[in-house]
Amino acid sequence: NKYINKWQRRFSTFIITRKELSTKSALLIPLMNAVRGMSSSGGPTPPFTTLSVSRPAETITHVEICRPEKRNAMNKAFWLEMVDCFNQITEDSECRVVVFSGAGKLFTSGIDLMGMASDILQPEGDDTARISWNVRRIITKYQETFSVIEKCPKPVIVAIHGACIGGGVDLITACDIRLCTQDAWFQVKEVDIGLAADVGTLQRLPRVIGSRSLVNELAFTARKMYADEAKSCGLVSRIFPDKDTMMAGALEMAGEIASKSPVAVQGTKVNLIYSRDHSVPEALNYINTWNMSMLQTQDLMKSAQAAMEKKSLKDITFSKL
Amino acid sequence: NKYINKWQRRFSTFIITRKELSTKSALLIPLMNAVRGMSSSGGPTPPFTTLSVSRPAETITHVEICRPEKRNAMNKAFWLEMVDCFNQITEDSECRVVVFSGAGKLFTSGIDLMGMASDILQPEGDDTARISWNVRRIITKYQETFSVIEKCPKPVIVAIHGACIGGGVDLITACDIRLCTQDAWFQVKEVDIGLAADVGTLQRLPRVIGSRSLVNELAFTARKMYADEAKSCGLVSRIFPDKDTMMAGALEMAGEIASKSPVAVQGTKVNLIYSRDHSVPEALNYINTWNMSMLQTQDLMKSAQAAMEKKSLKDITFSKL
Amino acid sequence: NKYINKWQRRFSTFIITRKELSTKSALLIPLMNAVRGMSSSGGPTPPFTTLSVSRPAETITHVEICRPEKRNAMNKAFWLEMVDCFNQITEDSECRVVVFSGAGKLFTSGIDLMGMASDILQPEGDDTARISWNVRRIITKYQETFSVIEKCPKPVIVAIHGACIGGGVDLITACDIRLCTQDAWFQVKEVDIGLAADVGTLQRLPRVIGSRSLVNELAFTARKMYADEAKSCGLVSRIFPDKDTMMAGALEMAGEIASKSPVAVQGTKVNLIYSRDHSVPEALNYINTWNMSMLQTQDLMKSAQAAMEKKSLKDITFSKL
Amino acid sequence: NKYINKWQRRFSTFIITRKELSTKSALLIPLMNAVRGMSSSGGPTPPFTTLSVSRPAETITHVEICRPEKRNAMNKAFWLEMVDCFNQITEDSECRVVVFSGAGKLFTSGIDLMGMASDILQPEGDDTARISWNVRRIITKYQETFSVIEKCPKPVIVAIHGACIGGGVDLITACDIRLCTQDAWFQVKEVDIGLAADVGTLQRLPRVIGSRSLVNELAFTARKMYADEAKSCGLVSRIFPDKDTMMAGALEMAGEIASKSPVAVQGTKVNLIYSRDHSVPEALNYINTWNMSMLQTQDLMKSAQAAMEKKSLKDITFSKL
Amino acid sequence: NKYINKWQRRFSTFIITRKELSTKSALLIPLMNAVRGMSSSGGPTPPFTTLSVSRPAETITHVEICRPEKRNAMNKAFWLEMVDCFNQITEDSECRVVVFSGAGKLFTSGIDLMGMASDILQPEGDDTARISWNVRRIITKYQETFSVIEKCPKPVIVAIHGACIGGGVDLITACDIRLCTQDAWFQVKEVDIGLAADVGTLQRLPRVIGSRSLVNELAFTARKMYADEAKSCGLVSRIFPDKDTMMAGALEMAGEIASKSPVAVQGTKVNLIYSRDHSVPEALNYINTWNMSMLQTQDLMKSAQAAMEKKSLKDITFSKL
Amino acid sequence: NKYINKWQRRFSTFIITRKELSTKSALLIPLMNAVRGMSSSGGPTPPFTTLSVSRPAETITHVEICRPEKRNAMNKAFWLEMVDCFNQITEDSECRVVVFSGAGKLFTSGIDLMGMASDILQPEGDDTARISWNVRRIITKYQETFSVIEKCPKPVIVAIHGACIGGGVDLITACDIRLCTQDAWFQVKEVDIGLAADVGTLQRLPRVIGSRSLVNELAFTARKMYADEAKSCGLVSRIFPDKDTMMAGALEMAGEIASKSPVAVQGTKVNLIYSRDHSVPEALNYINTWNMSMLQTQDLMKSAQAAMEKKSLKDITFSKL
Repeated sequence: NKYINKWQRRFSTFIITRKELSTKSALLIPLMNAVRGMSSSGGPTPPFTTLSVSRPAETITHVEICRPEKRNAMNKAFWLEMVDCFNQITEDSECRVVVFSGAGKLFTSGIDLMGMASDILQPEGDDTARISWNVRRIITKYQETFSVIEKCPKPVIVAIHGACIGGGVDLITACDIRLCTQDAWFQVKEVDIGLAADVGTLQRLPRVIGSRSLVNELAFTARKMYADEAKSCGLVSRIFPDKDTMMAGALEMAGEIASKSPVAVQGTKVNLIYSRDHSVPEALNYINTWNMSMLQTQDLMKSAQAAMEKKSLKDITFSKL
Repeated sequence: NKYINKWQRRFSTFIITRKELSTKSALLIPLMNAVRGMSSSGGPTPPFTTLSVSRPAETITHVEICRPEKRNAMNKAFWLEMVDCFNQITEDSECRVVVFSGAGKLFTSGIDLMGMASDILQPEGDDTARISWNVRRIITKYQETFSVIEKCPKPVIVAIHGACIGGGVDLITACDIRLCTQDAWFQVKEVDIGLAADVGTLQRLPRVIGSRSLVNELAFTARKMYADEAKSCGLVSRIFPDKDTMMAGALEMAGEIASKSPVAVQGTKVNLIYSRDHSVPEALNYINTWNMSMLQTQDLMKSAQAAMEKKSLKDITFSKL
Repeated sequence: NKYINKWQRRFSTFIITRKELSTKSALLIPLMNAVRGMSSSGGPTPPFTTLSVSRPAETITHVEICRPEKRNAMNKAFWLEMVDCFNQITEDSECRVVVFSGAGKLFTSGIDLMGMASDILQPEGDDTARISWNVRRIITKYQETFSVIEKCPKPVIVAIHGACIGGGVDLITACDIRLCTQDAWFQVKEVDIGLAADVGTLQRLPRVIGSRSLVNELAFTARKMYADEAKSCGLVSRIFPDKDTMMAGALEMAGEIASKSPVAVQGTKVNLIYSRDHSVPEALNYINTWNMSMLQTQDLMKSAQAAMEKKSLKDITFSKL
Repeated sequence: NKYINKWQRRFSTFIITRKELSTKSALLIPLMNAVRGMSSSGGPTPPFTTLSVSRPAETITHVEICRPEKRNAMNKAFWLEMVDCFNQITEDSECRVVVFSGAGKLFTSGIDLMGMASDILQPEGDDTARISWNVRRIITKYQETFSVIEKCPKPVIVAIHGACIGGGVDLITACDIRLCTQDAWFQVKEVDIGLAADVGTLQRLPRVIGSRSLVNELAFTARKMYADEAKSCGLVSRIFPDKDTMMAGALEMAGEIASKSPVAVQGTKVNLIYSRDHSVPEALNYINTWNMSMLQTQDLMKSAQAAMEKKSLKDITFSKL
Repeated sequence: NKYINKWQRRFSTFIITRKELSTKSALLIPLMNAVRGMSSSGGPTPPFTTLSVSRPAETITHVEICRPEKRNAMNKAFWLEMVDCFNQITEDSECRVVVFSGAGKLFTSGIDLMGMASDILQPEGDDTARISWNVRRIITKYQETFSVIEKCPKPVIVAIHGACIGGGVDLITACDIRLCTQDAWFQVKEVDIGLAADVGTLQRLPRVIGSRSLVNELAFTARKMYADEAKSCGLVSRIFPDKDTMMAGALEMAGEIASKSPVAVQGTKVNLIYSRDHSVPEALNYINTWNMSMLQTQDLMKSAQAAMEKKSLKDITFSKL
Repeated sequence: NKYINKWQRRFSTFIITRKELSTKSALLIPLMNAVRGMSSSGGPTPPFTTLSVSRPAETITHVEICRPEKRNAMNKAFWLEMVDCFNQITEDSECRVVVFSGAGKLFTSGIDLMGMASDILQPEGDDTARISWNVRRIITKYQETFSVIEKCPKPVIVAIHGACIGGGVDLITACDIRLCTQDAWFQVKEVDIGLAADVGTLQRLPRVIGSRSLVNELAFTARKMYADEAKSCGLVSRIFPDKDTMMAGALEMAGEIASKSPVAVQGTKVNLIYSRDHSVPEALNYINTWNMSMLQTQDLMKSAQAAMEKKSLKDITFSKL
């Protein structure tokens, strides 16, 4: 395992076995204790300087944006480290689910304007065309920061508490499942600093929530949206009373997903994203080509047998993927 | 009329005239009596072995998945019969609306794993490529089972009670309007048996409901979703207290739709599906080419005249289509 | 300024400064008084015969469909004047936001069947092909009536009271933000007059609200949908108790948007519409090409500075666009 | 073998072994003798009335349009039989390549106007909309006649002699490889009978030849194009002096293709057609999903081994597909 | 007739009857005499200042770029007048074919750099974003100059002599059929003046000729291509010895096309352009919706009858379109 | 300069100045001498083991596949090094054009079957699904090898001598301009080793040459195509008598392109590739967004001035890009 897993070592008495995860009442207290114990005091996991990566269970990776003293603002390092981090997760055949959250008092205050001023406010180049050329390269690179989340075939559950501003919305719309605390709020902030959001919000938010009138209102007015509205419009699928409960809930959901066949789960993600970007007939054509091999997995037999024997999938061992 | 219309014969005293359908209070009792009398004891309508097809009104076809003793599990015969059934409905110029429901205690338990094991679990072929080739042919054929519902230009109202599992969700997302009972629940079950859903759910569900976070959660966790959440997320547009009331409501809605110009209604379905799969400018271009002839229908004049004379469309006779 | 701004002249004592707009409590009363005073008695603004165009603030244009004696029915003149009106607004570098509403007792009763009978019911042509050719030209022209709203890069807030029928739904789905009064209702009326809606509803409504089952139900049954359902399904993003309050709210929202960088706001609209019609990777590629120059705006520096100095954007002067 | 193979029986002395096919000089004489002996006097192969289907070699199917007394005009039966015939070929796991040609003095004079007058010139329907609805169903059905050629994954070599008019051009542009005799000529005839070609020419011809100016000229003027121009513009890839030589050449090419791995060849066809209709990145994404299973074929090892041992593929036995 | 038809008046003795056009030998001499007499001395046709529009036959419009003293350089007026001119032609129900050529010694030297310097070299705007915004509006407007040629459903034959440089190539690639003289040469000149061609060449040239290597070479090196290479690569479909012969040939081809059903010819153009921009299945779906009405033209019966009676279409009268 | 430029050092007397390149007659002899002296004896340029990278001129990079003793077969290292090499070239703001060729007696014999057997013939994985998963990752990685050529915005001229087999065709179809010697031949070899070509040929070849019949023939039969046919079908745009002359010609063409504005040339490449994968209206929309900034380059003024002063662009200094 290539991550320095501080969190796991510190709480070695807390081992989430697959069985425990399913017995909800027994689980809640240790899960919440565990989560309450989580802190970003440990700080980022080297070589990362903005991310803390841990392994709450063998098949679950927890990634935390970890600059609490800067309100988790996204600085230059963050944009690059996310790409490395998620590329590693993609290659990590043990990992089956990712939980993403923010250290400290809030999820993220968005882009670190001070830290990135040179890139954004003073791009280089001998004339307008050359400046533009460089700006485009930079935006393209920054877009990749969140696109890697989609390219990673493992489901990514994002758990949001407190503020989620600007780049934070770009980030969470690239994740698969969104959970939040009751005190969370969201703000498509970009127009307020004079730009059209260009790393994902304008592209993904309209596909993530059902009301286009609301998408437009949020994008044009930069107003705050609180947890309840976020739930009723579909941006998040669940609200939790506080961060500890949410983290416990996220881990439980992650454990549930991690117990299923990775061939099934990751094939599902690949095809959900494909179908978002293609017509229904195109997407049907793609999945029949995808599944012509994937249905030949042993997981199908194992899962079917478990279903017939009414066994929990948590008692089944699937090969790595 | 090519369907053996048992239901209609048995309730010959119950004739849904267009007028009665619009006087709601008078209608409710006979409709509910009629529906209460409906049962799948009559069994499938030959030549079908899994479907019961009847004609509650001249312009309305009722299709029922009818293997109640097997919890309406989808066996090999079902996958083929659906295609024949809906192709016949497409060709039936009298029929203007379809109501689809399930016989017995629940809507459907999804794929009949036992009955289809040979196709899915032991596909033939001399090597992996040839097995894959055959698997792809099978999936393509099964996809057609639900795509015929979309290719049929008549609106399909699906009425769901009790469980709607796995293949059931693939089916209902291909229908046009979804109604359910208070006791209905839905489960995107495929990951639990080790596969990515490949006959429609992953392709259509994200276009059917507004919250992508919820779509993903359902597809990755295979958790149950109950009627209330289904209504609030937009999967169904109405909940009824029980099956009888729902069937009455479905028939009333079907009667309403059947009273309109079939040129207008079926053109609407064709273009709604086209516009789902194309950009807005593409879809506008298509409908102006579609309507250049369709606006030349006599139905336009008849409908406009009825509107001006404040007559009900139920008193207007439109030609078959 | 090329519009005859009657409204502004009549209420010269009411000047919405940027600062006032942000002090909500102080604002409400004059705003509501102003709005209460608004009437369509002044009638259309020449050269328009169906539209009244005014300038409630320097950067906000108010367009009102103004045939109250005909229930704002859309006659031949309306279809053409909308195109001229919005093309002018597109070219008007002062204007940053548009508010659209209806004069009199209701928003619009939709197409003026009587006034357009010749075009629709008796198109010209020597044979069916030639009639069809002409019908297609007419539809294409009418589609443009609402597409200009999308092609105009300035956000369009539509405020709906009372009935919004048929062509009215086509119109409002082409606007960016939808507000309505508690007494508003919506009706996709086209099937009732024998045609498939061909100027936008079938193409845009499914992208505007989250429940496809509901879209289909509305389009097939032509039933009315009232304000509360419109809000819960996402068609409108806010309900107001009455028209005056709504107009005040619309103007306040317009003022808020108008205070932001027009480069940011209009770039946002262009890219939101682009991303609706393209896949996420396509839309990301487009915005990075768009922003390679747009990020070189002075507005970015001005806005960033205001943000850091905690100043309101309403105190910042942006150049025209 | 489900085809009544008259041709093969009649020429039982002529057996094309794989080895003979590769020894070109020895082959030419018997091939040409065989072909010279071919005639359509035997007539169509029941149950077909317009097609003669034979099996010149185990893995090669020869389909001949066979109404020589009517200049191979395409009548109602032809449009339906083509679909049955190619669907059978698709299912026939022995067949690896198809050769298509015309019986008698010319390839085809195109649509049989007399025989199809009722469909085309007098379509049924109560009003213009309903007539149009029926016309559309008919065209869709006729389009399928040639689209089945593309949906069949086996390469189709078409050999054209004499006239190839109207529907003939629609047909040959749906084939994979086009050969012709020196006396062949081609005519996109549709404008001459008052219609825009709607069963494939306008859609496929521009993708088949390189000069758009020429495509347009042919489609607008309906002028004849002779063999030499057809070769230089890329419509055909080879010209032969006469029909016998051409048929020998077609069979030799068919034999060559039939000797290769069917997994490779048919995967190639599927992906060539996919890539025609998609962007390069889309098509690359599709083939990597396709080949993830198809590369697991034994044919790869067999072929690689043959290549290394410098053996002819004609000496290798591949499994059926 | 809304064009001041100088050319026609001057050569009133030359009347191209439909019959004459088909008797080639008799035609050649008067055609060439007529053409020899053509000159641009008459100058532009008011209200145009850069275009001369005439009517060599009732159904044929001849448009000539007419600034011979400036080597037909494209100035500001030209870009606007083209749009007006082709919009008028689109609306002109008499006109069935357009011939486009250049007055004086060469076809066109391309963009008039001097005359357009302000637009291109010194665009307005308060900052880079606003300058870019204006530049984009200008390019969009200029793109329309050639896109109108495609939107016009009448075939456009372009006849090129001498130089065809820069914008000239953008223009001719938007035309349908390209003819040239032996002394013609073509140059994709844009890189030589420091820009990527943005009004059509990069978009259309690769679809117009078959060799992508050649397209790229021409676009990157800006080298000249002479008539013979233009013919062999498919850019032009015919070469003529000199301008007079070419104009006679263009008129003859125009006469040939004009003699066919305009429903067939213009439907062919609309669908050829649609199919260029869509996949084959999409394009087939479009044409079956198009033809469901267009096949109901009387032209079909008239043309079919003429075909059966072996009459020339030039003796048939079709209604205007 | 980060490449170890052996070639340049060895031939320090040979300096291609911009001026010399344009005086063709004087140039030919030294160019040919220089080229004659080129050999792969110097071997690959570290850190590359399969590629030799040199700098024949300041703005031109020469990449040579350099495993002559293995007939330039593509081994594992090659697939990775190509990506690094072209990514470096993309970042190298001095380089404006790339020339690609093969060392030794032929261009390339294609994939190194022996060296890659483990990847292709024995992929890892616990079951068919997992093997397929890995195979897909490998193919995706190998596709990138040639896609980087397209993603690099600098034009790539490929110069082919002798054999160009299998993977070689995938490679050259991803290049922009293709030149070859008289003794060159091409072979789409993949079906002969039992697979459908999956790293570019099936996707790009049909867009590179004009005859689809020929594309199919080459892909299905794996026959050789010689230089003359390659020229006449448009695969290559020029044939040279021998390798030395070809290299001189390639360098001259490269010099010509390198003399132009890099903003213009590289914008041209980006847009040519974009337009290949999009419809014409989409591509026009993209380039107007691209050029809104790129037209603000100083290169436009410099180039325009040179054009007006009839100066050679080789005397103009453009900034790096």
